[in-house]
Amino acid sequence: MAPYAPVTPEILTQLEAIAPGRVTAGEEVNPDYGRDEMPIYGIHLPEAAVEVLSTEEIAAVVKLCYEHNIPVTTRGAGTGLVGGCVPAYGGVLLVTTRMNRILSYDLENFTVTVQPGVLLQQLAEDALSHGCLYPPDPGEKLATLGGNVSTNASGMRGVKYGATRDYVRAMTVVLPTGEVTTFGSAVSKTSSGYNLLQLLIGSEGTLGVITELTLKLLPAPAAVVSLVVPFGDLAACISTVPKLRQSGLNPQAIEFFEKEILRTSEAYLEKQVFPREIAGEEVGAYLLITFDGESEDALEPVLEKAADLLLDQGALDVLVADTPAKLKEAWAARSSFLEGIEEQTKLLDECDVVVPVTRIPEYVLFAHQLAGQYDFRLQYFGHAGDGNLHIYTCSNDMDREEFLRQVDAFMTQLYAKTMALGGQISGEHGIGRGKVKYLAQAVGETNLALMRGIKQVFDPKGILNPGKVFSAE
Amino acid sequence: MAPYAPVTPEILTQLEAIAPGRVTAGEEVNPDYGRDEMPIYGIHLPEAAVEVLSTEEIAAVVKLCYEHNIPVTTRGAGTGLVGGCVPAYGGVLLVTTRMNRILSYDLENFTVTVQPGVLLQQLAEDALSHGCLYPPDPGEKLATLGGNVSTNASGMRGVKYGATRDYVRAMTVVLPTGEVTTFGSAVSKTSSGYNLLQLLIGSEGTLGVITELTLKLLPAPAAVVSLVVPFGDLAACISTVPKLRQSGLNPQAIEFFEKEILRTSEAYLEKQVFPREIAGEEVGAYLLITFDGESEDALEPVLEKAADLLLDQGALDVLVADTPAKLKEAWAARSSFLEGIEEQTKLLDECDVVVPVTRIPEYVLFAHQLAGQYDFRLQYFGHAGDGNLHIYTCSNDMDREEFLRQVDAFMTQLYAKTMALGGQISGEHGIGRGKVKYLAQAVGETNLALMRGIKQVFDPKGILNPGKVFSAE
Repeated sequence: MAPYAPVTPEILTQLEAIAPGRVTAGEEVNPDYGRDEMPIYGIHLPEAAVEVLSTEEIAAVVKLCYEHNIPVTTRGAGTGLVGGCVPAYGGVLLVTTRMNRILSYDLENFTVTVQPGVLLQQLAEDALSHGCLYPPDPGEKLATLGGNVSTNASGMRGVKYGATRDYVRAMTVVLPTGEVTTFGSAVSKTSSGYNLLQLLIGSEGTLGVITELTLKLLPAPAAVVSLVVPFGDLAACISTVPKLRQSGLNPQAIEFFEKEILRTSEAYLEKQVFPREIAGEEVGAYLLITFDGESEDALEPVLEKAADLLLDQGALDVLVADTPAKLKEAWAARSSFLEGIEEQTKLLDECDVVVPVTRIPEYVLFAHQLAGQYDFRLQYFGHAGDGNLHIYTCSNDMDREEFLRQVDAFMTQLYAKTMALGGQISGEHGIGRGKVKYLAQAVGETNLALMRGIKQVFDPKGILNPGKVFSAE
Repeated sequence: MAPYAPVTPEILTQLEAIAPGRVTAGEEVNPDYGRDEMPIYGIHLPEAAVEVLSTEEIAAVVKLCYEHNIPVTTRGAGTGLVGGCVPAYGGVLLVTTRMNRILSYDLENFTVTVQPGVLLQQLAEDALSHGCLYPPDPGEKLATLGGNVSTNASGMRGVKYGATRDYVRAMTVVLPTGEVTTFGSAVSKTSSGYNLLQLLIGSEGTLGVITELTLKLLPAPAAVVSLVVPFGDLAACISTVPKLRQSGLNPQAIEFFEKEILRTSEAYLEKQVFPREIAGEEVGAYLLITFDGESEDALEPVLEKAADLLLDQGALDVLVADTPAKLKEAWAARSSFLEGIEEQTKLLDECDVVVPVTRIPEYVLFAHQLAGQYDFRLQYFGHAGDGNLHIYTCSNDMDREEFLRQVDAFMTQLYAKTMALGGQISGEHGIGRGKVKYLAQAVGETNLALMRGIKQVFDPKGILNPGKVFSAE
């Protein structure tokens, strides 16, 4: 790879001609543009930032950078957790947040076409007002859809509805040369050559810049009910999950958390939401389960059967949240886990592993015992139905260098255990900058060489989001 | 690309050492190994065929061929419709049909691990006996799972359950160098680098040889009911489909067919299955719809609502198939469409296009009018819920060269219309050898260059299934 060229005054003039009034450089650049939600992986400002408005503008900026060998990184809302949108090698940052229009619905064919800067929350609400569900439901509702697609985000409803990958029908992409192309089409099936659409999903902005998306929708379920289910301890809680899935009751979401993280979240919200004790027995862990259905009547027998099953499996109680207010309250506690953790600690790192559902207790126990050898504090919660765990290491007052050293040693061991259990090192956050080293260890040389080969095919000069997914040498 | 080397007596000796007693060459080779179900795309026998039994044997054969620059093509049951498993450049044929063991179930995590030569029907039945559903349901039940994954087959139940792509968790792959690697893992979510697993699915044996598969299962629905729904004509029939999908009733399958192909199929079966006239009105087209649910009671209101909707939309009647015998009979007619067509014609070609569901009537009318300019006869049917149409051109007594010429002219125009409607040239059959020219036209130079680049990364010598998906120059 040739060394990158700087963004010169001449380049700035050309950027300004492409996007008049929407280019910032040097000191003017918004300081947020140097980081995402996990600054531990390094803060790097771009030399210039361009608030783009269209595919044509993006193509023009990328072409200019390609010709001059300048790195280009794409940023949506900056809500990522692995440093994926941080311009590690400087260069130009494409900011897509103003490309936030929902362009059109095709309600007969159940698709919607959007710009990449539309927020998840914005689409979810708008789709509902059209009688449709956009199923992917990551905890972070203020992420852009472009970001969601780039990381293959999934979230709570993955159990029933899958990940973002399953809802992308087509995309317009600017390739690193500045060429514009489309992958996929609005239809639901294809077996027409290598699936470039699927390859771009989860590629974290390293193969192309997504400038438009056609997404699949579903008819919105008429009834949604959540169950809050306290258990005495984690093992009883988790061993219930495979039983639930085998029951054929088909829940939309199955989340688990232990009492510690709930307390953290409730302290942040300044409100106690879930019971801490049932009939004198202390609650150790909770499931938060959501069912949806065609009508409240149709859900009734499902909820009854679920309650029987849960109590049979040792649940201390089954609390029903069946009104919008109750649903909101139950999920607010779950949604504030990260904010609660952030408030309590100076430095934070995390991992986003996936293990087979039945191995969660063993894995959590392993993580606990391993963390006992270090000085940081562990907090975690997860998508129990998918085996996807979010494990946070909280520095408390530890020194930064020491924290980084300890976390690296811990994560290396934790990822080795993940792979030994047949897991994956990231379920939905991606590799970004923070997990590059661990991906290389996890997938091995052969697969990494294939990934690097693919990168080379799309981006022979290595200008697009360098240093992400794998190192940029 | 270097010219390929022949399979010499020395190579045969080495193949025999790898797979003793399971190598055939020259005249001994099973003549079926030169073709699939669509011989119109050319019959080519391999120089040698090896009935492989394990990943290790496959790796050894591929390594040998890589070193000597000999083409390698993988064949399952040979039920493809685009010449995908035909060894167009001779060389060695890997036959996987004896790798037909279901290796293990993980019923708590809902996965099954199989060898690639397991037949779809074999897994479907075995999974049911374990209380599980393997959702992909192509018409051809005697295809191997390796073949299904290589073409991303989908079939009837795609409306509710998606394609094979959605049910592959992990695979063991022999790369063209003979290296063995794995893509994916048994867990349900990942965002861990480029998704090589998804890239292999639908790549038609051109990037690697699949030697083991871990597949996702679902709890088997307790109740399955089909509705046979006659309409006066195709337009009324098809316009009902988006309404059905918007209703939230979530059918498993929505098939459509017109009276002509039903007559063909019934003639083949020597049995009349569906009514030809309802209360004096001739039936022009049919929907065959399947619903599944957790119990017969739970399905009852769904079926009632569906029947009301169908009659509102102009259905002449709604016939219920709710016993195993009735279900089998209704679907037998549907399943015999291809056999019925094959029996009636000397030469056959087909396409497997996908268009938005709402455009089916317009598209079928276009195909009809276009076919009027040619001497062949058109037969078609389709997965209405997905917009996936199977259109057959039947030569009757036409001369082969003339038939090929006319079909090429027809298909070129038909595919252009497909792309103009935002469709795809293949929904589930793949590109193979038969559709190479049309794929290049459909996806354009930029995307084709990316696909060729990816092929080069995996297979720099171009030994794996050459001449498929794109031309081998």
